[in-house]
Amino acid sequence: MSTLDGRKRVVISNVRPQVEEGRFAARRAIGESVTFSADIIADGHDGVAASVIFRHDSSPLWQDLPMTHAGNDHWQARWVPDREGMYEYRFTGWIDHFTTWKKGLVKKFDANQDISVELRIGIEILKEAAELAASDYQLAFPRWIAALEHTADPEEAIDLALSDALQEAMSKIRYTDRISVFDVTFRLEVERKKAGYSTWYELFPRSASESPGSHGTFRDVIRLLPKVAKMGFDTLYFPPIHPIGELNRKGKNNSLVPALSDPGSPWAIGNRFGGHKAVHPELGTLDDFAELVAGARELGMEVAMDIAYQCAPDHPYVKEHPQWFKWRPDGTVQYAENPPKKYEDILPFDFETLDWQNLWQELKSVIDFWIEHGVNVFRIDNPHTKAFPFWEWMIGEVRKANPQVIFLAEAFTRPRVMERLAKIGFNQSYTYFTWRNSKWELEQYLYELTKTDQQYYFRPNFWPNTPDILPHHLVEGGENAHITRFILAATLSSNYGLYGPVYEYGINKPHPGKEEYTDNEKYEIKHWDWVRYSRTREIITRVNRIRKTYPALQSTWNIEFNETNNDQVISYIKTAPNGGDSLIIAVNLDYYHTQGAHIKVPVHLLGIGYDQAYVVRDMLSGEKYKWHGEYNYVQMNPFEMPAHILKVERLN
Amino acid sequence: MSTLDGRKRVVISNVRPQVEEGRFAARRAIGESVTFSADIIADGHDGVAASVIFRHDSSPLWQDLPMTHAGNDHWQARWVPDREGMYEYRFTGWIDHFTTWKKGLVKKFDANQDISVELRIGIEILKEAAELAASDYQLAFPRWIAALEHTADPEEAIDLALSDALQEAMSKIRYTDRISVFDVTFRLEVERKKAGYSTWYELFPRSASESPGSHGTFRDVIRLLPKVAKMGFDTLYFPPIHPIGELNRKGKNNSLVPALSDPGSPWAIGNRFGGHKAVHPELGTLDDFAELVAGARELGMEVAMDIAYQCAPDHPYVKEHPQWFKWRPDGTVQYAENPPKKYEDILPFDFETLDWQNLWQELKSVIDFWIEHGVNVFRIDNPHTKAFPFWEWMIGEVRKANPQVIFLAEAFTRPRVMERLAKIGFNQSYTYFTWRNSKWELEQYLYELTKTDQQYYFRPNFWPNTPDILPHHLVEGGENAHITRFILAATLSSNYGLYGPVYEYGINKPHPGKEEYTDNEKYEIKHWDWVRYSRTREIITRVNRIRKTYPALQSTWNIEFNETNNDQVISYIKTAPNGGDSLIIAVNLDYYHTQGAHIKVPVHLLGIGYDQAYVVRDMLSGEKYKWHGEYNYVQMNPFEMPAHILKVERLN
Repeated sequence: MSTLDGRKRVVISNVRPQVEEGRFAARRAIGESVTFSADIIADGHDGVAASVIFRHDSSPLWQDLPMTHAGNDHWQARWVPDREGMYEYRFTGWIDHFTTWKKGLVKKFDANQDISVELRIGIEILKEAAELAASDYQLAFPRWIAALEHTADPEEAIDLALSDALQEAMSKIRYTDRISVFDVTFRLEVERKKAGYSTWYELFPRSASESPGSHGTFRDVIRLLPKVAKMGFDTLYFPPIHPIGELNRKGKNNSLVPALSDPGSPWAIGNRFGGHKAVHPELGTLDDFAELVAGARELGMEVAMDIAYQCAPDHPYVKEHPQWFKWRPDGTVQYAENPPKKYEDILPFDFETLDWQNLWQELKSVIDFWIEHGVNVFRIDNPHTKAFPFWEWMIGEVRKANPQVIFLAEAFTRPRVMERLAKIGFNQSYTYFTWRNSKWELEQYLYELTKTDQQYYFRPNFWPNTPDILPHHLVEGGENAHITRFILAATLSSNYGLYGPVYEYGINKPHPGKEEYTDNEKYEIKHWDWVRYSRTREIITRVNRIRKTYPALQSTWNIEFNETNNDQVISYIKTAPNGGDSLIIAVNLDYYHTQGAHIKVPVHLLGIGYDQAYVVRDMLSGEKYKWHGEYNYVQMNPFEMPAHILKVERLN
Repeated sequence: MSTLDGRKRVVISNVRPQVEEGRFAARRAIGESVTFSADIIADGHDGVAASVIFRHDSSPLWQDLPMTHAGNDHWQARWVPDREGMYEYRFTGWIDHFTTWKKGLVKKFDANQDISVELRIGIEILKEAAELAASDYQLAFPRWIAALEHTADPEEAIDLALSDALQEAMSKIRYTDRISVFDVTFRLEVERKKAGYSTWYELFPRSASESPGSHGTFRDVIRLLPKVAKMGFDTLYFPPIHPIGELNRKGKNNSLVPALSDPGSPWAIGNRFGGHKAVHPELGTLDDFAELVAGARELGMEVAMDIAYQCAPDHPYVKEHPQWFKWRPDGTVQYAENPPKKYEDILPFDFETLDWQNLWQELKSVIDFWIEHGVNVFRIDNPHTKAFPFWEWMIGEVRKANPQVIFLAEAFTRPRVMERLAKIGFNQSYTYFTWRNSKWELEQYLYELTKTDQQYYFRPNFWPNTPDILPHHLVEGGENAHITRFILAATLSSNYGLYGPVYEYGINKPHPGKEEYTDNEKYEIKHWDWVRYSRTREIITRVNRIRKTYPALQSTWNIEFNETNNDQVISYIKTAPNGGDSLIIAVNLDYYHTQGAHIKVPVHLLGIGYDQAYVVRDMLSGEKYKWHGEYNYVQMNPFEMPAHILKVERLN
């Protein structure tokens, strides 16, 4: 009983943000708002007050953010972080005797009862507060106390009791012996803006040559940089650029019998020229790569690197660190399998090795190596096949020294595994968007991502295609499907990416029976025509420009779906932070026919009256429409433009 | 990094039962099943295994309960506690190399591939297991290993690999260096059966006299015991039995000006004859009370006591411990207020007193005193107006020494406050049932109570009325409403209670403008005729007998609602534990008219085919109905019997 403090009557629970009760940090990018919330109660009928206290890792000072009651004992406080790094935060609450007293005083005064005893109680409250008040209030309190003691006019006393000045002074008092503090100190990781808003373009450097048939180089990619930048991308992502294994190399279409000229899969990493810290000789040198990184930066783009922690059989690690692999009794190393799939050209690491500490250090040193070479964005290949404790340690260590580094998890696996990877540190994650097509699926999935606790740790990056995935609807729906799926990705999620140039040209021939491209660029060198007109590219360029102009499209959490009376038409509003322009978006999900619908405009979010006229301007077509109140009609022809991105312009 | 164990690849999260992440114990009564569950994953494609380990407080030995995969990475294990007291439990998981190996072995064998290398891997797995195996397997492992080493017949090897004996032996192996253990040790409090199944009857002893006008005594109550027992109640609960304050005593109908003869409210506790450890002289002596407790016990009933931690102005505490009260500057003690309500006859304790430790000890000693006098069930008056830390400490201490003690929280307040009281130790709680009338309200409320995390800590006790609450529907609906609301309480919740004899006789005259009885027994002595026939009493008796016969009605968690095509007809099934009889219940919510409906029988829960005929027997009327498949018709006349309680009898 001696260790309890029985006088702390306020109880705090159900706090947000939290990720597994503080085991992991919640995450927000600079400029994205955080709403702290908690259920806060006390016994009896006394008033309660609460605040969140927080501090940046680098500061010993806790800041105090007052919470307000949002109904049903739920309290909230909103805050917009403006500084990168790790924050700590705690929830505190206490009995607010001052407010309780004011309420009773006013009630009695209004009922014409004698308030002289009440005033004496108030004087006691102020005297206790005076002892705790900061120095800038040390003159004010004696003055207020004297006034209450000497006034003969009850109305004057009430005026003083209800004054803003006194309220402000009292709101700063903390009765430290009676404040309840929630027992967990939580962490919030504030990342740079790019973690929350990024636009990715994936290409194979080896296909970048101007001459068909020859192996592209980093210098070829430098030549293409202005074209990618012009489309509006800010992140240029390459499959692995390391030496490609020669042992068990795969041929075209994943064949086990490669031709001599076959270049192999870039994900089969390592040969006699080196491993994860080397570049494939035919792509160029480390110096060429440095020039490419610099060239991209000049055009406002960053290079993102693909890190696949796995080895070709001739990777130097296999000889140098045999203990990092699982050896079979027949003297071979176990290659990667996901029965019935076999990856004979890839050896996984054995994360149960007794030498795991050295393995972890070496894998981390790969990231450190590329950070030194100017790379700050890493797309991690198949993270779900490597031990979770490794990621948690590695990402934590890297970001402690280099908080600007962003990790994207390329995991397309079970929900609980996807979630775990996000919790343990990945800043962005691939998602199931690739297979969510119907209105119901999209609404339900976005609800899960943005309205449940996932919003605190899982940051989606929407990809309509990847070199591994050519979804059926892109095969069936052709160019229209490519455009529609792109617009959905780019407006539903502030982070999205495309694998091109196949995407712009709608190349969509599937490998029979599979959800994959045939003649896949993973196993062969391609040649792309970067000049030919593409409707898809034109729309990509236009939408990326709108994303840059409107902050409403630079966050993922600010989405609300609008009712429509046609299941082929999905509509949502992206509300603008801090009073900017909100955008109403409508997309025709039917790739083949014009569809129309009445959509229910959330006029309450726009400050528009239910019977008011206003104008919406389509950022895609430039056209203006006169709308009125809640229900308004839209119609979209997928052969022209399958979507509206509407900005509301109020009439004066 | 040295403190991490990188080889523990299994990750556990989302565990149940849990109450605020282990801050509070989950709760189950003896015989009620517990389903432990968790999300359990690992990287890659290896198989996973998991178990819950638990131990009783009194035992150093942990028991191991294997979990099974229930889909989508969710794992479960069911357990039925049979011993009272506090348990600890933990969640553990590990990579199951043996099962992973078996799967690969069989796949290769089925594909006619060579399995000799696989067999050698299996031998290695068995050799490691042999070192960890318990002594009863020390002969078996060498035999299995030798068999695998020497067999020339792959089929024989497969048979051994897949044998039950080997599986059983391997399932007991724990690779302690690679087991992940969830970082919180949880607690489960197992209470005696009565915590989960109890039937309460509330009466005022002072109204128990045979002669109208005279003050009833404990001896009068002894005379009534057989009548209460015959109705089927097992808990006889009295309002406070302590000396009633004489200062500021309230008169009839809560009047501030009592007549000399007015007995006052039993909740205004304490006068010159004593306080919370004394009995009101007119009721009798402590010896009389002991006889009453013994007499009830002989009839299978327990006496429940009302504990109201508050004082009349003439309670001895006020003089002996003035520091436990809040004194106003005018030298008076602050009486209880809930503006605009005033309770001039009641002084609350000040839980912010600096002498809180002595206050807590004294309040606990009240409970200890009555436990010594044979009381093991306490209904706590208005717990939400006393500090939460006090309850947590007090109930914990009392139940540590006396685990048989049951506390019922009489809190009708905000949801978060009700929940907190349950978390911090109350075994049962009053609920909002009293105001939940429509089918939608009842279904939604029961969902909240039985399907959300509330089921782990909040155990409802349904009361259709109390001396404080005469709900409008009992006024409007008369006898039919009394019967219907009783049947709902007694079949929706395994714990319920009534305030009688007003209930049996349908006395329902409200205080004008209030949801309260007029001429309330709280302020005056009544005289009840215990002989006159009452339809309500007859049905109470019948339903209580059914509750005693069928374990399906002795748990609250086993409810599933059945669809009906009439909003006036609610229907649910109470599934039986361990293969007993499940009961289908249908209730007409319309107090005035006969209502019928097709109800959708959950035949899958009953093992009945969708096209099968069967018989249901109504436990209320004794009638039999022949039913068929899912949809069957019921019809109930509220002037006869507003409900069916149906037992399914299969045809042979």
